[in-house]
Amino acid sequence: MHDNLDAIFNPQSIAVVGASNRPGSVGHAIFSNLLGTFQGVIYPVNPRNMAVLGVRAYPSVAELPETVDLVVVVVPTAQVAAVVDEAGQRGVRGAIVITAGFKEVGGEGLEHENHLKAVVAKHGMALVGPNCLGVINAHNSVRMNASFATKSPSAGNIAFISQSGALCTAVLDYAMGRNIGFSKFISFGNKADVTECDLLEYLKDDPDTDAILMYLEDVSDGRRFIETARRVAWESKKPMLAIKSGTSAEGKKAATSHTGALAGSEAAYDAIFLQSGIQRVETISELFEYAQGFSQQPLPKGNRIAIVTNAGGPGIMATDALERHGLQLATLSDATKSRLKAKLPPTANINNPVDVIGDAHHDRYEAALDLVLADEGVDGVVVILTPQAMTDVLETAQIVPRASSRGKPVLCAFMGVMDVQEGVAYLRNHGIPNYEFPEAAVRAMAAMSRFSERLHYQRRHAAPQFDVDLGKVQQLIEGFLGEADSRLLHQAEAGQIMAAYGLPVLKNGLATSLEDLERVLDEVGLPVAMKISSPDIVHKSDAGGVMIKLKTREAAREAFTTIVANAKAYDANARITGVYVEQMAKKGVEVILGSSRDPKFGPLVMFGLGGVMVEVFKDVTFRLAPMWEISAERMVQEVKAYKILQGVRGNPASDVESIREAILRVSQMLTDNPQIQELDINPMIVHAEGLGSAVADCRMVIERRR
Amino acid sequence: MHDNLDAIFNPQSIAVVGASNRPGSVGHAIFSNLLGTFQGVIYPVNPRNMAVLGVRAYPSVAELPETVDLVVVVVPTAQVAAVVDEAGQRGVRGAIVITAGFKEVGGEGLEHENHLKAVVAKHGMALVGPNCLGVINAHNSVRMNASFATKSPSAGNIAFISQSGALCTAVLDYAMGRNIGFSKFISFGNKADVTECDLLEYLKDDPDTDAILMYLEDVSDGRRFIETARRVAWESKKPMLAIKSGTSAEGKKAATSHTGALAGSEAAYDAIFLQSGIQRVETISELFEYAQGFSQQPLPKGNRIAIVTNAGGPGIMATDALERHGLQLATLSDATKSRLKAKLPPTANINNPVDVIGDAHHDRYEAALDLVLADEGVDGVVVILTPQAMTDVLETAQIVPRASSRGKPVLCAFMGVMDVQEGVAYLRNHGIPNYEFPEAAVRAMAAMSRFSERLHYQRRHAAPQFDVDLGKVQQLIEGFLGEADSRLLHQAEAGQIMAAYGLPVLKNGLATSLEDLERVLDEVGLPVAMKISSPDIVHKSDAGGVMIKLKTREAAREAFTTIVANAKAYDANARITGVYVEQMAKKGVEVILGSSRDPKFGPLVMFGLGGVMVEVFKDVTFRLAPMWEISAERMVQEVKAYKILQGVRGNPASDVESIREAILRVSQMLTDNPQIQELDINPMIVHAEGLGSAVADCRMVIERRR
Repeated sequence: MHDNLDAIFNPQSIAVVGASNRPGSVGHAIFSNLLGTFQGVIYPVNPRNMAVLGVRAYPSVAELPETVDLVVVVVPTAQVAAVVDEAGQRGVRGAIVITAGFKEVGGEGLEHENHLKAVVAKHGMALVGPNCLGVINAHNSVRMNASFATKSPSAGNIAFISQSGALCTAVLDYAMGRNIGFSKFISFGNKADVTECDLLEYLKDDPDTDAILMYLEDVSDGRRFIETARRVAWESKKPMLAIKSGTSAEGKKAATSHTGALAGSEAAYDAIFLQSGIQRVETISELFEYAQGFSQQPLPKGNRIAIVTNAGGPGIMATDALERHGLQLATLSDATKSRLKAKLPPTANINNPVDVIGDAHHDRYEAALDLVLADEGVDGVVVILTPQAMTDVLETAQIVPRASSRGKPVLCAFMGVMDVQEGVAYLRNHGIPNYEFPEAAVRAMAAMSRFSERLHYQRRHAAPQFDVDLGKVQQLIEGFLGEADSRLLHQAEAGQIMAAYGLPVLKNGLATSLEDLERVLDEVGLPVAMKISSPDIVHKSDAGGVMIKLKTREAAREAFTTIVANAKAYDANARITGVYVEQMAKKGVEVILGSSRDPKFGPLVMFGLGGVMVEVFKDVTFRLAPMWEISAERMVQEVKAYKILQGVRGNPASDVESIREAILRVSQMLTDNPQIQELDINPMIVHAEGLGSAVADCRMVIERRR
Repeated sequence: MHDNLDAIFNPQSIAVVGASNRPGSVGHAIFSNLLGTFQGVIYPVNPRNMAVLGVRAYPSVAELPETVDLVVVVVPTAQVAAVVDEAGQRGVRGAIVITAGFKEVGGEGLEHENHLKAVVAKHGMALVGPNCLGVINAHNSVRMNASFATKSPSAGNIAFISQSGALCTAVLDYAMGRNIGFSKFISFGNKADVTECDLLEYLKDDPDTDAILMYLEDVSDGRRFIETARRVAWESKKPMLAIKSGTSAEGKKAATSHTGALAGSEAAYDAIFLQSGIQRVETISELFEYAQGFSQQPLPKGNRIAIVTNAGGPGIMATDALERHGLQLATLSDATKSRLKAKLPPTANINNPVDVIGDAHHDRYEAALDLVLADEGVDGVVVILTPQAMTDVLETAQIVPRASSRGKPVLCAFMGVMDVQEGVAYLRNHGIPNYEFPEAAVRAMAAMSRFSERLHYQRRHAAPQFDVDLGKVQQLIEGFLGEADSRLLHQAEAGQIMAAYGLPVLKNGLATSLEDLERVLDEVGLPVAMKISSPDIVHKSDAGGVMIKLKTREAAREAFTTIVANAKAYDANARITGVYVEQMAKKGVEVILGSSRDPKFGPLVMFGLGGVMVEVFKDVTFRLAPMWEISAERMVQEVKAYKILQGVRGNPASDVESIREAILRVSQMLTDNPQIQELDINPMIVHAEGLGSAVADCRMVIERRR
């Protein structure tokens, strides 16, 4: 973990360098935000004023009466590095740089930022920013608002970290309007030093934080990000939710493979979030809807949800939403139903959704909520209230926290605004999330259920290691490269590397002459497919260079002669290195397995079904290598065409296990050998369950590693 | 249109039968809501009180001093019909029945409702309800809140009609919290008389209503609903938005066809909304988000949207949302960009999204908004504001209505709650919708753009009529039915009906003997496919009863003998009526065209691509017959597999025009012949563009019409 972060988030003393008496200035805003609330000591540093807002000012950090834990810097861009350097010399461990005009403006700004980085590294300090709104620790024992936000949030158990400062101000305002409190609120700007990963590690162990929310525009180090987020999820069980905005065109390069054409930075980001256990959401409202559920209620142990409502229509809407979001309408036990019958009027609906009817007082809600929470077939409850003539909103709100102490989540949708406001305020003050409409409550419950499911995986989580002769593989690669900087390996060459990694490459060989063919056939057996081998002929079929299903030696010999003749007719100058002979694959479902190397995040592995599923529908999924077994398993299951692998139209189920293993072997191959830039296994033919798969065609691009 | 609706929505005088002095009672709530605000005369009818809330009461409707336009009835269920009858005799034209306990409780309630219906019919009155919250006309010249809602909404140009009374109370509350006003607010309950269709027709011509919102749980008459909604869209151009909740199991019956298995009431509802021009939304928040855009801003003429923002992050999020919702990020003209450059600081982004930078005052917003609105490549603008240190929120809000008078929609996302509230209030009061987050603004803009596109279809809108000998078809059907009540027609029989409708059925014939085969081959030509014809053999392939690609007469003769022998070996008792001989279809893409008859809405037509696309992915689409040409065209385009028809993997584009025509012919066949219950054309083989299609196999279920 990054050292010294505690100096930033939990300081005893702070100097605001650039603190100002001028209202409307940033230096004024920050100092005002700290003054009167921060529980430690604050010093303004300002060479032109005796005091700032009545507090004695000092001309420089060096002249401060004590060594502070943290400097907050709002001086002009060109002076920032010097200020931080001075602070570092004095022994200050933390800095927040608010000032903008660095990397984000390019040119000279980039130089300023590099200079600043060097200063920070020299002193071993921690620095948040530059170009940020600042940092808030709302805990009552700290109450530090070291930002120029116009609002100070209340203390809560949600941490929010954001790459956009402007968004922070809107989020703070939104959250206050909903009584949402924060543990830490961190605008991290250009992340010259402290990155999202450092923050995640810090928040993992932060006792005040129960849920972590992020707004990201990019991730600096994909691999570290995944590993850090996984640790957060596993060690602390804190849920993480992220908005990742911006679809960047960078990272798209001319691709020589299917995989290369389909991969891109968005595919890499999707993989990162899937592998790290972070739920990606689209909107800020979702972010906070989910966060309220996560931070205030226990996780559901399953996905069977009960609904208690005083109105039929909203109950039906909630039921529709359950299905849409992958939850189940819980089936109540007969015991529960007969107890409900005894407690509710005859017109009530005692099946889920339980309708306590429009004239219900809080007592009916209490009975119904108690009974469905006690039902073992119920994992969580959504309580819907519409304000009707007889409804006692506040009293009904009061029974909810009482009833919901059974370790099962209860989310409310007290609908409307004005009529229900007293009740909603009561719920908020007692840790029960309320949503304006049932749909939002259900969506939040679904997010909690997904996270819960993720935490319950039983499988061992590690990238498996297959036994591979890496030395031999590296020799092969170096041999193929020869003098070249990069090469496209044809099937026979790429197949050797894949075979070394235990991939199910069909038996094959290169026949350089009719005589040589006999030897190759001895090795490969019959039937075979045969293809021209020539570096100059790319479209082998067009050249008449492919023949398949050759069942006899005689047919193979004839094919050799024909293929060579066709190839010469197609291109008289083509160099012909022989005819490639391969065992015929048995029947099966065609899948594609590929990889491309993201310039920022490293090797991405792709999986999908062949044919139209990949070419037309782009029904593929990605993960970064190396990956866990569970990732390979999920990859196979999450493509839409998975149903085809399960067996349809009278076909047997396919050997999904062999795909999973192939994905993991490819993943290891990419991790071990940085020279492999792109590869396509297309198709790999997957046989029926238990019968394995066969690599029917493959290609690979290798590049000399510098 | 239903007569007398004006008596309900625009009365001069009202009697509240069951008006009460008892606080908390419904009769009290309704009378209080009317008293002091309604601009006409109100009379309480109550036999036990001299006065209600100080207004002289009358013992019965008969004894009222004048004939009122409207009675609002809140007496016990068993007395309702008598009260309405008395009102009818007196000459009252309109009634709203609040009282519940009718059809919705079944049994005796159903009898009460039928009795009530008869009374209403006898007098030719109009009746809203029973079992409803009531009706509100908020227009300032009427101010009628004839409901027991605890709130009276302000006047506005949105009409809301709802099948759920409880939802109404929540919606009223929600809308008031957002300053959303209504023209009419109608809870229509059990719709014993006035239905959603009557209301749509009324609202079409209501000068106070500019947008219509609906909450529906079912639709009484699908065909009339579609026709009414289409008229609303075409004649009044008023946008309609609906939530349809509840996925009902009714209407699912044992299906003998693919189409039957995939169709259901939800498919019918999807078809209804698609064909009627009503946008279906999932949540109440969406409903009102969209409604604010529709009711306050002009429609965009296209989908090219500009964004003006003072913060990068939210600008990127809005850009992401544009793409997600099918809108385009407008490309600004060079002229616009150079003008922006002159008006904005050098660090501003003059490309779309236009970033006026965090320290922008309202003058920069004004310049940017003026310039992008003037750009001919821009159809609408989303203005994003995050409250930053220098932001003058109110002043910025003030420039928006000034700038946005160019006939292009402007939607705002002033983000946050507290900091922006003054500005948001100003926007609301000046007809500019504001959304908490850019995502919601973009989503609303997308809904407006879709509606605008729909209004701009140039094509003639009518169900085309193909020339068909209907008498002959009816003879065929009667002949096939014979004495039976229903029959499954085999390919040769169904093919005759389809051929009569001009569907591209391949030449075919039934050979009853080897000699007869010669005659059939003369008619059909070569090559042919041959299939056993037996009412007892369903799985013809399993029985060895299918042979294809028979190129010579000799091969056909051999096939005849083999097929008959195989069939006998498969089932010695099977009745064999001959061998069906059909012209071999040329190559092409396999599609499926089918139909099933919804018990409530009539014939549904289905289209999809054959094979896994329909069987695994259920990638199909439905419309109700009869349908417009545009519907058939959209059906083909809206399946995901449409891309395959456009030509992929080196295949030519398919003859989409011939599919469209086949859909329309099937639609007419179903409309003309009520005996056709289900049919599958599976597959129809679609050849390359210009080369038509061929019905390669088909089946049909016919039923005697009673």
